Amino acid sequence: MASKESKVLNIISRRGIFFQSFSIYKELGGFYDYGPIGVKIRNNIKEMWRKLFIDLTQAIEIESTDIMPEAVFRASGHLSTFTDPMVRCKVCNTAYRADKLLEEFYEKRHDLKAMDEVKRLSLEELSKRIKEHGIRCERCGGELGNVEKFNLMFQLKIGPTGTETGYLRPETAQGIFVDFRDLFKTQGLKMPALIGQIGKSYRNEISPRQQLVRMREFTQMELELFFDPSEELSEIGFVNIDNVLDTRLSFVNAGENKAVDASLRELLESKKIPNKYFALLLYLEERLMQELGFEKKSYRFRELEKEELPHYSKGNVDLEVNTEYGFIEVAGNAYRTDYDLSSHSKVSGVEITVVNNGRKFVPHVVEASMGLDRIMFALLENSLVTGDRGWDWLKLREAVAPYRYAIFPLQKDEKLIAKARELARLMAEKGENIIYSETGSIGKRYAKADEVGIPYCITIDYQTLEDDTVTIRNRDDAKQIRKLIAELLA
Amino acid sequence: MASKESKVLNIISRRGIFFQSFSIYKELGGFYDYGPIGVKIRNNIKEMWRKLFIDLTQAIEIESTDIMPEAVFRASGHLSTFTDPMVRCKVCNTAYRADKLLEEFYEKRHDLKAMDEVKRLSLEELSKRIKEHGIRCERCGGELGNVEKFNLMFQLKIGPTGTETGYLRPETAQGIFVDFRDLFKTQGLKMPALIGQIGKSYRNEISPRQQLVRMREFTQMELELFFDPSEELSEIGFVNIDNVLDTRLSFVNAGENKAVDASLRELLESKKIPNKYFALLLYLEERLMQELGFEKKSYRFRELEKEELPHYSKGNVDLEVNTEYGFIEVAGNAYRTDYDLSSHSKVSGVEITVVNNGRKFVPHVVEASMGLDRIMFALLENSLVTGDRGWDWLKLREAVAPYRYAIFPLQKDEKLIAKARELARLMAEKGENIIYSETGSIGKRYAKADEVGIPYCITIDYQTLEDDTVTIRNRDDAKQIRKLIAELLA
Repeated sequence: MASKESKVLNIISRRGIFFQSFSIYKELGGFYDYGPIGVKIRNNIKEMWRKLFIDLTQAIEIESTDIMPEAVFRASGHLSTFTDPMVRCKVCNTAYRADKLLEEFYEKRHDLKAMDEVKRLSLEELSKRIKEHGIRCERCGGELGNVEKFNLMFQLKIGPTGTETGYLRPETAQGIFVDFRDLFKTQGLKMPALIGQIGKSYRNEISPRQQLVRMREFTQMELELFFDPSEELSEIGFVNIDNVLDTRLSFVNAGENKAVDASLRELLESKKIPNKYFALLLYLEERLMQELGFEKKSYRFRELEKEELPHYSKGNVDLEVNTEYGFIEVAGNAYRTDYDLSSHSKVSGVEITVVNNGRKFVPHVVEASMGLDRIMFALLENSLVTGDRGWDWLKLREAVAPYRYAIFPLQKDEKLIAKARELARLMAEKGENIIYSETGSIGKRYAKADEVGIPYCITIDYQTLEDDTVTIRNRDDAKQIRKLIAELLA
Repeated sequence: MASKESKVLNIISRRGIFFQSFSIYKELGGFYDYGPIGVKIRNNIKEMWRKLFIDLTQAIEIESTDIMPEAVFRASGHLSTFTDPMVRCKVCNTAYRADKLLEEFYEKRHDLKAMDEVKRLSLEELSKRIKEHGIRCERCGGELGNVEKFNLMFQLKIGPTGTETGYLRPETAQGIFVDFRDLFKTQGLKMPALIGQIGKSYRNEISPRQQLVRMREFTQMELELFFDPSEELSEIGFVNIDNVLDTRLSFVNAGENKAVDASLRELLESKKIPNKYFALLLYLEERLMQELGFEKKSYRFRELEKEELPHYSKGNVDLEVNTEYGFIEVAGNAYRTDYDLSSHSKVSGVEITVVNNGRKFVPHVVEASMGLDRIMFALLENSLVTGDRGWDWLKLREAVAPYRYAIFPLQKDEKLIAKARELARLMAEKGENIIYSETGSIGKRYAKADEVGIPYCITIDYQTLEDDTVTIRNRDDAKQIRKLIAELLA
């Protein structure tokens, strides 16, 4: 029997929800394109994110460039520290993530302790262990060299003289930090100031794998909340943080494996999260997951261990969703302190400070960074329903479904087709999110609509020609009702 | 007196609608970031484009990657022909677009004939003329070298071994061509098949200038219409092309300067445009320009001359808008024949054909490619109203305005603020596009709202506390009416 994973991947691939990029050419890992169903679902997720992270908090949304000059990443620390340990085959030159190679080696031996140690090993220690265990090239069996640092940023040259080095951003956040000073002024911001962005990020992964989990080009939805560390306000946009502190999360404490149920208030009191602003971010994520339709048991918040922390972080909590690949990170929440603004100020020589309550200082920042591609993949997998009818289908909420209505003429009869196309046109003009189809038996078309999670199928049949009613079939229970077209268009 | 251009640039810069990227670091031409007003307007334009180019035509929308391997651009021709003539200073190494240098030289001499000749000159002839005229480096006065080809694509290395060369796409179209075969199958497409995409494109311009007119990173909205050249159907999605052929355009014939008024039918009959599908694209653009609120006299369609045609084109019509920089191209329409699909098939060795009416062939394609950044800039400039009140303002249509309502408490009075914030919250929850502000005098806030084109300002005053009515001020005539809050929320 096919696993749940391969069942959802089967739908994804047959319907072209996403697929490997430039597949007519040589395969290149980590690049995916989205077909129309994928684009629609992604746009819906973006809009749901905007409603919560931008509109509800009255944040501002910006769009900064993908290409940025080297100085930005010298300041941010990415130039020196945004690296993975890499080892190459001495014979065929194939490159591997050294830590992943070792982890897999220990996993096969069921040595969980050693697996856990890997992330704390230095480059020298990684080299030593690979040699000790006689791990060789997976492709040609050749000997592996020494482990070295590999910077994950894509480098390029800007301008015709070739002297200006740039990079594709590895996170959307730096655009916000670099613009902070100008935005604070032109937008008349006050502390706390919230700035968000949806956009592409790029990481030249050594060995991309697991579909949308580790991509070389992906989309982030990031919110940076800048604040005065000497005060803690509760009123942010239309949210009063005090009023939402009873929100309960599944939370995994550092060093543990099992999630416990905890309120934001408890997490604050036990200092698992640094402040109320951080609590706000977790609250927004919990709401987004609920509105997307994730079941409570399918995701959890996890406190990172010291060794896992990014170079800028003073505390991180990841949001993880259970998939067939295990729990995968779909959001990272970090307390970046004043690290980024201070670094950019130092490297650029430009003062980046604000005045609040008569005090001049560099704002601190907490960040919520979500991976759109991973959220979509996790959502598809978690929405899959199998075994209740002759086909597998996606139980997607209306707000996230690719189309709200599919419109079908019952048969290839000119009169039915004309009527159905006219209804489709009128509904589309009304702004309804519809798809029209006349190909295949009506049963097959129902199955195809279910498969990509369309909540309602409207069928135009011979009775429609007489009384202007249509059949509306509900995806979830497959029950049908008749309704007047006039009501649909009202 | 400030020109109209600098007046609109003044609003753009003071309000951070867009601004130079990473400005705290060394200036790098051709990169712009968008602030919240810019992001909102851009998103509105994207949605209006989608309604026409995707929904109305029942096209599919995809998202392909920004990074693509070299083979793609070897096939598309960009590797060999996507170049500009470049000349460098022998002393300080500054690079210039050779043709633009010469054009500017002839423009100063009012030699329009020579200006026109420039685009037909070979690299050798460009070199010769630069030497003849004694044109020297603008920066240091040094001697200029020979004119050479400069490829405008950004190159990068994919993967850790450094052997795989990739490029940032210079147009979104290639993603659609490379995916065509898979999409045709998974999406059950038929001829004609319409595939669109909104996304970033990247061109390493030699000397970027004129704000959003020549950017190194910009956003395109492209629709490719694939068709069987042996048939010409009229029914595309919800449009019957025959029914819209009476649409009239301002059209500039190749070799002429002045636009004439012509219907799509006349353009078809005189073979100015190659087929009905091409007419559909111009129809959609005309509608988009009208819906965006451009005045008819502010834009025109222009038939390109042979020398201006891109390497793949068998006929091009540009859509141009009049701005202070003169008429600038905001959309290009091209008949690309089967050039792209055939080339990709040849280079990849993968057959890319379809079967239609029993005949197997490589589809032809017409393309409508719009530049989002330029459209936005042209729209802001064309919407500027000056001289009728104490401030300049943008007459933006509701569909494109950054916010529909601005909500203000009349004074900094706790009761008014509480009431205004509550109304803002309720309207935001209802999905209304609102902005709340309590800073500055009410007059200043009206002026600030006008300035970025917000159609309605809602003011909460003391009467509101008594009878639950608010003042609604109309941007266009500055007239005020009172309305019940209940009506606003209905």
